[in-house]
Amino acid sequence: MEEKKMIKFNEQEKIDSVNGALALRPQINEIVDEICERGYSNICWLGVGGTWASAMQATVHMKEMSAIETWAENAAEYLTTGNKRITKDTVVIISSVTGNTKEVVDAIKKIKAEVGATVISFVDAKEAILLDLADYKISYPINEQLKFFMVADRFMFNNGEFEDYEDMYAEFDKYLAQDLVEVEKQAEPFAIEFAKKHWNDEMHYFVGAGNQWGATYSYAMCYWEEQLWLKTKSITSNEFFHGMFEIVTKETPVTIYIGEDAQRPLSERVANFIPRICANYTIIDSKDYELKGISEKYRKHLSHHVMHAVNNRIDVHMEIETRHPMEIRRYYRRLEY
Amino acid sequence: MEEKKMIKFNEQEKIDSVNGALALRPQINEIVDEICERGYSNICWLGVGGTWASAMQATVHMKEMSAIETWAENAAEYLTTGNKRITKDTVVIISSVTGNTKEVVDAIKKIKAEVGATVISFVDAKEAILLDLADYKISYPINEQLKFFMVADRFMFNNGEFEDYEDMYAEFDKYLAQDLVEVEKQAEPFAIEFAKKHWNDEMHYFVGAGNQWGATYSYAMCYWEEQLWLKTKSITSNEFFHGMFEIVTKETPVTIYIGEDAQRPLSERVANFIPRICANYTIIDSKDYELKGISEKYRKHLSHHVMHAVNNRIDVHMEIETRHPMEIRRYYRRLEY
Repeated sequence: MEEKKMIKFNEQEKIDSVNGALALRPQINEIVDEICERGYSNICWLGVGGTWASAMQATVHMKEMSAIETWAENAAEYLTTGNKRITKDTVVIISSVTGNTKEVVDAIKKIKAEVGATVISFVDAKEAILLDLADYKISYPINEQLKFFMVADRFMFNNGEFEDYEDMYAEFDKYLAQDLVEVEKQAEPFAIEFAKKHWNDEMHYFVGAGNQWGATYSYAMCYWEEQLWLKTKSITSNEFFHGMFEIVTKETPVTIYIGEDAQRPLSERVANFIPRICANYTIIDSKDYELKGISEKYRKHLSHHVMHAVNNRIDVHMEIETRHPMEIRRYYRRLEY
Repeated sequence: MEEKKMIKFNEQEKIDSVNGALALRPQINEIVDEICERGYSNICWLGVGGTWASAMQATVHMKEMSAIETWAENAAEYLTTGNKRITKDTVVIISSVTGNTKEVVDAIKKIKAEVGATVISFVDAKEAILLDLADYKISYPINEQLKFFMVADRFMFNNGEFEDYEDMYAEFDKYLAQDLVEVEKQAEPFAIEFAKKHWNDEMHYFVGAGNQWGATYSYAMCYWEEQLWLKTKSITSNEFFHGMFEIVTKETPVTIYIGEDAQRPLSERVANFIPRICANYTIIDSKDYELKGISEKYRKHLSHHVMHAVNNRIDVHMEIETRHPMEIRRYYRRLEY
């Protein structure tokens, strides 16, 4: 009997994509090393929507290891409130698929005109205004978190806060791409079941923490709401207990992402409690996926990639179950607003 | 004909409460001045749930005016991820109703034991562990935002970033308490209508920005979810356009809070767009309330108080319409978790 082929899954393409991103590291390091040589005061990850979510992930990752001042700045908020912590000595890092996201373009224009901070720009497209405006630019598709984390890790390494840096990336270079496609394969039967069970939920709750939080927020908003037109709420694992959980009863659909970084106990706390009040919950734990060749101590750096790989398979099957093509938008970039 | 009496509205008690909070200012200033005299590196507003939301409000308020490094720290996240920006030179500010919130107690214990930062503690209760643990303590009920903003404003004044400080507080001392009860009175007919219309919503969306955002987040979670057991989602005005709005259609209940601080345009953008896609929206604009005696330029400092006063009246009528007493909890502090 022939094995059933996974749809929308080009294994080689996925492997090449991750390896191509990892291969940007020498280029990234050259940029970061030059900035560190020159000196800088703080690091600002700037975005909006999904890229702001990635910025939150980079920030919590750095907070766990580093004394460098760093934060996630929402581009639209910067344009109104401003931020006096952004000076000529600040490093601003952005990422954009199209390279023309309005709020980010306007924010970077303002920063270049009024402040003169150093801007590092990642854009999927080959040509874009957000590349033109940057001091340092890298054009390469997808893998946003990987790009951000490579930048963050190099800054921390140069600051003497990441002893194992070379060793860790040696493992990633060798194993990560293959490991992530293996995660997708392992997740496939679960994803099929999950989509069949939840495609028609009136409302779905997603809970996460640490480097999974930005991904949880953006998965709920940028995938289920934006691309599947399904109602969701996302909440951090810690805040779950401060009000939100009062509306959870037996049939409320709740999905909890558990990673392996420092905030793992916060999500475990939700996972341990939820069976008492809910019979419609799902736990997605990065620990359940092998990641062959990766040392135990580096797994916490990869939890969000595991989650992303699992979600990739959920998306494929949600799109089928809902019969809702994920590329259509009702309003986004279709209306003036 | 006798005027109908507003229920759960003791005007004199409310006036005394706000004036009592404003009267803490000399005591607050003595604390802040002493810290400024000694020197400090940064300011951390630490909380969880509703108090973390207030911390976000204090932070955005400061960001608009100040170059001081400041941020909102979630107590539960601090306990796991830590934060190397918190040092012995940091000022940590907390607020708690009971003074025994587990995550905050543990976080402050850790900070005092491992770091030795300066802790300013506001607690509603007269005696509490969070008062015992603090370097500076103030015991006074409710008015959390007012307490936080008085601290923030004094730090900015001492840093030469708030020229009008004395003039502004002279107006607040004279007019604010009365103005806020007038807001409640003005909001009453609206609140009655709103509660009648929305008490049975399957799901309600709250949108806000700037110093209204923390309040929007906590109103949705700590009031409707926790106290009324109604499903809500809150989203910032800017992020509304980055995914969430795709699920809004004609009958989706959406409430937009518009304040008068720098992020006002972000909420106006939602208000201007929403009629095209939704016929079940509500706009609550602080500008619609008079605030007699308060200069135009200081109104932006009060938007969140106006919103809070309006929400007070909504709560009263939601409690009646839902026949759901707001003091009952299903799980919060009733189960082990």
